[in-house]
This record gives sequence, C-alpha cells and structure tokens, in this order.
Amino acid sequence: MQRWKLTVEYDGRPFVGWQRQANGPSVQEAIETAVFRFSGETVRVTGAGRTDAGVHALGQVAHVDLARPASPATVRDALNQHLKPQPIAILAAEPVPASFDARFSARRRAYRYRIVNRRAPLTLERGRAWHVMRPLDAGVMDQAAQLLVGRHDFTSFRAAECQAASPVRTLDRLSVRREGDLVLIEAEARSFLHHQIRNFAGSLRLVGEGKRPITWIAEVLAARDRSCAGPTAPPDGLYFLSVDYDAPATSVG
Amino acid sequence: MQRWKLTVEYDGRPFVGWQRQANGPSVQEAIETAVFRFSGETVRVTGAGRTDAGVHALGQVAHVDLARPASPATVRDALNQHLKPQPIAILAAEPVPASFDARFSARRRAYRYRIVNRRAPLTLERGRAWHVMRPLDAGVMDQAAQLLVGRHDFTSFRAAECQAASPVRTLDRLSVRREGDLVLIEAEARSFLHHQIRNFAGSLRLVGEGKRPITWIAEVLAARDRSCAGPTAPPDGLYFLSVDYDAPATSVG
Repeated sequence: MQRWKLTVEYDGRPFVGWQRQANGPSVQEAIETAVFRFSGETVRVTGAGRTDAGVHALGQVAHVDLARPASPATVRDALNQHLKPQPIAILAAEPVPASFDARFSARRRAYRYRIVNRRAPLTLERGRAWHVMRPLDAGVMDQAAQLLVGRHDFTSFRAAECQAASPVRTLDRLSVRREGDLVLIEAEARSFLHHQIRNFAGSLRLVGEGKRPITWIAEVLAARDRSCAGPTAPPDGLYFLSVDYDAPATSVG
Repeated sequence: MQRWKLTVEYDGRPFVGWQRQANGPSVQEAIETAVFRFSGETVRVTGAGRTDAGVHALGQVAHVDLARPASPATVRDALNQHLKPQPIAILAAEPVPASFDARFSARRRAYRYRIVNRRAPLTLERGRAWHVMRPLDAGVMDQAAQLLVGRHDFTSFRAAECQAASPVRTLDRLSVRREGDLVLIEAEARSFLHHQIRNFAGSLRLVGEGKRPITWIAEVLAARDRSCAGPTAPPDGLYFLSVDYDAPATSVG
C-alpha cells in the first residue's frame, strides 16, 4: 500500500463542492471513481480543504492509499484519463509516507478571491470572479485587511453552519491589490472557518466602496456577531491556491 | 446622427464568429439586435476585426451610427442590458467623428495567443487556451518569431479561404514569453491575413517542441506555400486585444 499526495485543479461550477454529497456531483466522488476505474480499489480521498459549491481550486491537495503499484506519471495520467470530461485535473501525483495527511498535516492554506471591478458585465470571467460595479479603493481595502491579521475570534466572519469547535483562528496574511480591472484578495492561514474568506470579501467590499470606514472592520471583528459584518461574497471569485506542509511530510516514503 | 465607437469584450465560444452568418449566432448580429432594442434603429455594426468562431476579444472595436441621442454611459449600459445573457460586454461607448471607421481607420491591431503547456488537461482554461502537452521552449519560439517580423509575403501562413487581395503584410511585433504554465504569443500589425496568427502559433509550436530548428521558420516564410507550415492552432487560445487609431479619429466629434 502506497500513500499518494495529489495536487488537484478544478473548475468548481459543475460541482456541489469538494465533499461527497447525496445531492449532486462532488470533486471528491469524481476522483474516487477515477481511482476505482484505474485500480479497481474502493478508496476514500481526503482533501486539504472542503471547498463549497462553485469554488475553484488551482492547487487543492488530497491524499489516497493505493495497493496497485505505479509510477507518479502513470497515476497522474491515468486519473486524468478517467476524470474526463469533468473539469478536474491531477497536476501532480507524488508518493508520500503513510504519516502524511492532506488535511491534518497542512501547515498553511492559501486562497485568492478575485473581483472584476467595472460597470460592464462579465463575459470570459463569468462564474470565475465576483462582479462589483462601484469603484473599489483597493488601498483602503488593504488597510482594513491588516486589522484582521493575527489570532482572533472570527465569529463575525463565520457561517452559521460552520462546524469548527472554535471560532479562533490565526490569519497569517490578508492582502488586497488591484491589477487593472481586477481586485485580488489573498489570504493565508493554517486553517479557515466556513465562509471566512467570502465573508472577508463581502465586508472589505463595503470599505472599498466607501460605505464603511476602515476602522469598521475592527468593530465588526470585536463584535463577534455575524450580523455585524457584510454579506457573504459569491463562490465564483474564490480559488484554493496551495497548501504548505512541513518539509519531512512531503518527502518520498 | 452620431457615430459611436464601441469597445467590445466577448467569449467567442457560443458564436460563429464576429461576422453575421446564416448558420448561427454572431457577435455582430447580437450587437445589432441590442441596438434595435435600445433605439428601434436597424443598423449595421462594423468591427475592426472579423474574428472566427471560438476566438475571443478583450478589446474589439466597432462603430455604429445612432439617431437617438444619449450619453456615453447610457449607450454602454443600455446595450449591455439588451445583450444579456450573451457573453458580450460593451466596455466603453464614445462619440466619434463620422470620419472614424473602426475597420479602415485602424492603424494597428494587437492579438494574444495563449497556450497552456503542461501534461494535465485543462479545467478553468478549457476553451480559453490551447493545451500543448510537450514542453515548449519559449525562448527559441521567440527567436523564431523575430524571423517573421517586418514586411513579407505571408502566403505560407494564410488560410486557403483568405479573401485579402495581397498576401503581403507588415508585422510590427511578434513575441513569445512564458509565465508559469502559460506560453503567450503576442502579435501586432496594421492588419492580418485570415488565420495568420493561428498559423504562426501552429508553426512556432513545432519549433518550441524541438521538432523544427529556429531557421525552419524563415524557410517556411520564403516558400510562400501554406503546405510547408505547421497546422493551424485552434481558435480557443486567440484573443483580439486592442486596436490603435490615429489620434484625431478618436477625438469627440
């Protein structure tokens, strides 16, 4: 039995999310089915992050145990073959020690939230970004974002259905920058609460539009009350970028 | 009667191309229909470039004459409203002198061709880039591209159905660069022949894969024979970026 680390990219639009659910196709189920077609093994694939319906990934990480021996290139190419025509791609397959756990060994997760900030509707970016028509000041959004960095009780930015035991998280980085019509929010932390980044985006938007002052973000955080923050931004703009692990866990076993 | 310059973005996938055709929906027809819904006028919209089926635009330029008086913001927003749900957006509407012609006043057109160069299949980039699996050397592709810059007979890179009177064109710029998995080809000229950039991409790919030497591009050009060049690259990767006009033609009339 060999444990494999899979780096996974997907377009989140056709899926109910990462996690297997009764009400529709999930990324997890699609990969588990591809593994079965490749090796005949019924497996459980564990992902580093349980992305919601419509949320995309450029570098989700998952692990799976396979009895069938194969080279990394074979595992990658065979799974991709069996995943067709679904918009899921295995970018890399690497053998890892059995102690590696895609979810619990993760040291840091990185996400990007993309906003297209212009009057005209979206064409090529439809379903791939949040369309905000009023002009956003990315500079003041970035200043407000810094008030969220650090170890805090993020109850105000947590979905009602969040299952985490504690609302306390340590946000390592939150930045906002403009690139032409795009406003990019990037977030890094060991772990996030449910909807945390989409709730950050929804509140930072109000600051960027000038509807709230920069310091309002600190008040929302201190209130520990979800109803104080802005609305949840849509899933379209959210991308799971990458996961960092402690160096020994990613070496070949 | 006021002439309007429209800057247009579209996802080329659902269309038979820019130009109105009997066999399916075109971008031109969609905009003409939107104009009719806005002003009740039956108009002809003239585009700077007649993009093919599946080719995208980030900055196509068109002109149209309207009798109904309106502000630039009203023209832009009303056309966008009537274009829904089609993936076409009017980014800007500007009043221009009647002497302005989107097609014939164009001094320079710019296109980008996007290649995703990796083993894994496309997900979010499906239909928006050409997937090339073998490693491409963007440096040698760029060196080969320089052999095409200048005034040449481009018969070798011209579609059989090209209707231009002459195969001679002046290519102002052709560059190839890598950004991670992306290989970007950018081309600028006053005008292009039919399929010229997609034929450049198809031949430069062979050089980038090491199947042909850099100097082969000069031989293909000199042969003035379409059968000597590489295959035509798919429309998915091609984006009409922008059009430059002489300064007086774009001022308000």
